[in-house]
This record gives sequence, C-alpha cells and structure tokens, in this order.
Amino acid sequence: MSLTIGFQGVKGAFSEEALYNFFTEDVETVALKKFEDILISLGNGTIDYGVLPIENSSTGAISDVYDLINTYSCYIVGETYVKVNHNLMGITGCALETIEEVYSHPQAFEQSKDFLNKYNWKLIPYYNTAKSAEYIMKKNNKKIAAIGSKKASQLYNLNVLASNINTNNQNTTRFIVLGKELVSSKECNKISVVLSTVHKAGALYNVLKHFAENNINMLKIESRPLVHTPWEYYFYIDFEGNIEDDIIKNALHEMSKDCHHFKILGNYKQAIKN
Amino acid sequence: MSLTIGFQGVKGAFSEEALYNFFTEDVETVALKKFEDILISLGNGTIDYGVLPIENSSTGAISDVYDLINTYSCYIVGETYVKVNHNLMGITGCALETIEEVYSHPQAFEQSKDFLNKYNWKLIPYYNTAKSAEYIMKKNNKKIAAIGSKKASQLYNLNVLASNINTNNQNTTRFIVLGKELVSSKECNKISVVLSTVHKAGALYNVLKHFAENNINMLKIESRPLVHTPWEYYFYIDFEGNIEDDIIKNALHEMSKDCHHFKILGNYKQAIKN
Repeated sequence: MSLTIGFQGVKGAFSEEALYNFFTEDVETVALKKFEDILISLGNGTIDYGVLPIENSSTGAISDVYDLINTYSCYIVGETYVKVNHNLMGITGCALETIEEVYSHPQAFEQSKDFLNKYNWKLIPYYNTAKSAEYIMKKNNKKIAAIGSKKASQLYNLNVLASNINTNNQNTTRFIVLGKELVSSKECNKISVVLSTVHKAGALYNVLKHFAENNINMLKIESRPLVHTPWEYYFYIDFEGNIEDDIIKNALHEMSKDCHHFKILGNYKQAIKN
Repeated sequence: MSLTIGFQGVKGAFSEEALYNFFTEDVETVALKKFEDILISLGNGTIDYGVLPIENSSTGAISDVYDLINTYSCYIVGETYVKVNHNLMGITGCALETIEEVYSHPQAFEQSKDFLNKYNWKLIPYYNTAKSAEYIMKKNNKKIAAIGSKKASQLYNLNVLASNINTNNQNTTRFIVLGKELVSSKECNKISVVLSTVHKAGALYNVLKHFAENNINMLKIESRPLVHTPWEYYFYIDFEGNIEDDIIKNALHEMSKDCHHFKILGNYKQAIKN
C-alpha cells in the first residue's frame, strides 16, 4: 500500500513540489486547505506524513507553522528546500494596464514587494499561490491577476504577464516533513527542539551553554511568544547531531533540566540548500 | 515649537494611543500610510520622532519593523505598551448575519482567529484597524465590517457588533519610539542591538557569552533572515543596562569583535508592562 501525504494548497502549490522532492512519485497526495488541517489529518490517521513550509530565505519564519508543531503531537522526519520564483499571471486579454486586484498568499506579496510597489493594485490575500491561480482561471476576468509558480500558470492555463517578480532571486523556502513518531537512523544529523526557560536572568544562556560545552553546532534559533504568559518565549533551536549519540543524549538531558517546557521536535537528515 | 510625531494609520489607530502614552498632549501628530513612511519622514526631517509597533504578546514580532530599524538610520529612544482589544463594527443595519467581508490589519485577523473561525466571512487585509473602520463608514454598506478599537468605532460612528473578540484577553502590543540620534540618560536601563555573527560553529554562543560573563540580563532575542545571504541571520537582542556604564561599554566592545554587523539600536527606559 502506498503512503498518503498531505500538503497545503491545490495542485501546483510549492508544497506539492516539496512533497515530490522528498517522496518518490508513487505516493498518494491529499491537498488540504489550511496548515492546521495537516496536523489534524496526521492525528486522525487520514495521512501518513504532511509537508509544510517552515521558513523562507527572504521573509523568515512562517510563525503559524512554528506554533502548530509545538501544539500538536507530531515529529519532523525530514526537510527539503524549494526555490521559489513568483510570476504574475492572468487570463487572455489581461495585461498590466487592465489589472485592478491581485490574489496570492501574503508571503508572495511580501516576497514580490519591490515589483508590486510600482503599481497601485489592491492586494487580496488568498489561501496559497496555486489556489489563487485556480481562482483567476475560474473568474475569467481581465481585471484580476494572481501571483504563483510557472507550474501553476500552466496547470490553470494562465498567461505569465511578468516573470520572476520576487525581489530576491535566491528566494528559497525550507519545508519540513511531519510524521507521528519520533524516528532516528544513523544518517540523521540534525535535531530540532522547542523549549521555554525558567523566568530568571541568564536562563536562556544556561540552556545554550550546553551546546558550546559539548561542541554542538547550533544552526538556528527562533523565538515565538508564549501566548498566555505575555513577554515570555518559546525558543525553537536547530542543531547538528544524532539523538542516539551519548554526547547529544547527555546535552539534551542537562538542557531539559533548565527548562519549563522541553520537546524534541525531531531528528532527521539535513537537506542540501540550493 | 512643539514636536512633530509620526505614526502609522489614521486617527483612532492603536499607534496613536501609544503616541499619547509616551508624549504629552501638546505635540503635533502626522498620520502616515506605511511603516516605512515613518523612517523616510524621520530621515528628511518632516517628523521629530516616530512611533511603531514592534511586538505583540500573542502573535510575536512585527518582522517588517525589525527589518526597517536595521535598514534605516534611526535609534530607539523609548518604548510603551498598549492593551489591544479588538471589536467587530459596522454601520447601522449591519449584523453578524449580513456580513460578507471583514476589513482589518492582518495582525488583527490573527489575534481574533478563534472568533473569526466561527464564520465564513472573507477577510480583506487593510492598512490598519482605524483605516478599516474609516473605510466601512465611507462605504456605508451592511455587507462589510471592520475590526478595530472601541475608540475607532466611536470616531467613525460605527456600531460594535461583537466586543473583545481577540482570542487572548491579555493581548498587548509593545511600541517603540524612534528618533534620529542615539541618546542616553541616567534613567535609561534597556539596550537594543542588532548583529550578525561570523559564519562558523559556536559564533552566536561566543557573542552571548559576554552577557553571562558580565552578569548582563538578556531580555529577548529575535532572528531575521539576511535576505541576500540565505540561511544566515540578524539577531536582535534586548538586554538591561546603560551604555555609559563601563561594564556595558566593555561587553559591547568585546561582542562587536565577534560580529560581521553590529549596531546599537538604542538605550532607553524600560516601560512597565501592563
């Protein structure tokens, strides 16, 4: 039986591309409407794995996803990078001069800011880039356009009016693959944790010192608010290592002693950044 | 001559409330359309100071503002907290059943997510909460509503259809006051810096150790991508201290040696969190 993998969006979404980067072609895919739907589907067994964007090289963390992986029971089992190039697209007859409204994901607006600033279009945030393209096709209206991938323009039969409109031509998104179990194998060389420290001076430093003392290479730190305790934070930390390694085991144990909340989010193979 | 202070939005914006928290009533205020307009106005001398939201207790950092204060020449001279309660408002005749579209700032949607999830309204992001209220008043249409402050509903003569719809009733936003010069006085007890480390293992730790070694209390760390160098980061760090203090001076000097980019963003008086 083939695996069932969930992604957010519709056919042609960057998440679908990430999915096929990681899994082979013979998986079944489920297109879901919201990020949270992936976590829910994973919980009730409708899907075996889910693919979610976690960070973009130009616009930073996708905060919603950080919050979701801390809230739901799930583990990161892999990661993959997808180059994200945005294109402005519309139906036949649509041109830069006819456009009044542009539909896309807010992140696509943000990543194409310099281009969009030259026009006076109304920007309407929509579920994702591919769904925006689908919507433009269905509406069949010259006054509206979408921002999305070249693939989406082909799938939904739209003309590209301006290509690679993203400000940064190295625009890349990191996606994570979520499963229900914490798994690890010899080739896993990256660990993600989320923690909150006790509320006293130097608490975060006390946690981080275990990385330095054990020569562990910290790759990233991201902070998110603790919603019900204003001005305290969850720290999401990525670092190199394998959870079966004794040095890592010991460091994780020592670290967790200085924390209120401590969760291993996963141990997986570091993907190659492209 | 009275000072001229810029804020983003229109009359009734939470930023305007923050402005009057910090300055006395006899200042001239300038309502500007975008966050960036405040930095531009500060640069060309149109305003003496600008007030900007930097962080919300429920939804976290306001990334655009973090990026702007690192890009433009400006310094944080103060901070203030504003309790943010959101309300759904419309013209006379507008009711929960007549609404089809809701206008507001995306952060207001995010902060009112649990309430909005109960309805099938189309959410249309707009410049800010007060401008959304103004727009609803002008449109005079029962099918559209806005989310904003009670003050905005009064200013724009709208009925509150649902009050305090924010998920978290402790929802608070921290605002910063920006000026052109780095100033410090005896009562300044909080310092903000932004830095990027050299790209090698343990680099961030090497910077942070100066806080611990000098007994400096780190209050917050936030990371933002270095747009043109994918997967490297700027770290924004807030900590306690006065830049005239010798221990602080020395720590800043040592820290900057381990950094590629190092900028003191300001020294100011810590506001009381409410």
